[in-house]
Amino acid sequence: MAPRVVKQARAERTRAAVMLAAAEVFAENGFSGASVMKIADRAGVTLGGVYFHFRSKEELARAIVAGQPEFVVPPEGSHGLQRAIDVTRTWARQLAESPMLRAGARLVWEQDRFMPAGENSHQQWTGLMAADLQSAVDDGELKPEVDIQAIARMIVNACTGAQMHSYVETAHEDLVDRVEEIWRCLLPALGVSDECKGIKGIGRE
Amino acid sequence: MAPRVVKQARAERTRAAVMLAAAEVFAENGFSGASVMKIADRAGVTLGGVYFHFRSKEELARAIVAGQPEFVVPPEGSHGLQRAIDVTRTWARQLAESPMLRAGARLVWEQDRFMPAGENSHQQWTGLMAADLQSAVDDGELKPEVDIQAIARMIVNACTGAQMHSYVETAHEDLVDRVEEIWRCLLPALGVSDECKGIKGIGRE
Repeated sequence: MAPRVVKQARAERTRAAVMLAAAEVFAENGFSGASVMKIADRAGVTLGGVYFHFRSKEELARAIVAGQPEFVVPPEGSHGLQRAIDVTRTWARQLAESPMLRAGARLVWEQDRFMPAGENSHQQWTGLMAADLQSAVDDGELKPEVDIQAIARMIVNACTGAQMHSYVETAHEDLVDRVEEIWRCLLPALGVSDECKGIKGIGRE
Repeated sequence: MAPRVVKQARAERTRAAVMLAAAEVFAENGFSGASVMKIADRAGVTLGGVYFHFRSKEELARAIVAGQPEFVVPPEGSHGLQRAIDVTRTWARQLAESPMLRAGARLVWEQDRFMPAGENSHQQWTGLMAADLQSAVDDGELKPEVDIQAIARMIVNACTGAQMHSYVETAHEDLVDRVEEIWRCLLPALGVSDECKGIKGIGRE
């Protein structure tokens, strides 16, 4: 490798290490309890090393919250209503293990301190859920009179609440069960058509 | 009044003042950011004055969380499904104004530090919701095959999530609308019978 490529690769590794360290520190301490110094120590880099990649604690928190959907990859080929369900189940299954997702969950409460208005995690996830539900309507899985936006907000609200209660009660161990229960409760309200009988992952198979 | 009665009344006033001050301090700083000293200062009493009534910061937080339902009084005469809806709407309407309810909301995340297992706010509210929904089934408002416990958990989850997102986006100003939307989404899943057509407070009147 040419020296410039080596340098570039090293910079990317450092950036990733700083992100991961920040996620761990945010997950443990929240936004207000975290400091750039703690993050630098955890990543094993200098303060200057952190500031080379991120201008502030706020910018680090923004990158972690905005990147949440990238860390949640549903099974290939799932679409429409099945994809909406799979996204929430994948998130629930990975949350306990993933520092990035745990940081995202921990930062929900404080995101008014670092996210621009209109870009918070609630709106981000609601938009993604609504897109999958709209595909489901387009494909005839759901009745067209279903209020997609309201249902999307409802799912994001319920998953947020389930996440908090699961954290307090079982350190997220039973989160997948709680998320599947949410879908089981909600499905009769979605006007699911006969084409949708084969839906998986709501804990009744 | 006899001196002992005067003393008793004064002690009760002090206790109430300490509770209120604690609620304000918890609402602003969370559990870990609060201290008994801050609470004493806010209440205008000595440290000894606080410890006369509450053994610790934990005991204060427990009293506030355990007392939440007392601060949420639905309209007289409402029962069954209407009462379940009214309880959530009353809570949503009062949250922005009530230090006790704001403290309860703020402490959800940290309650594993001070609530005994099995007595947290999620279980407390789920029990209350389930009781109202059971009355609704008994009165023929809801179909008996509805999974009361699952629906109760769903409502508490969704209200918790709505509360957090409403806090971040509008300082709780639009919480009543969000709670009414939850019920609007969920009602078709509840197997509501014809007796229940007159239901109020879900934002469609």
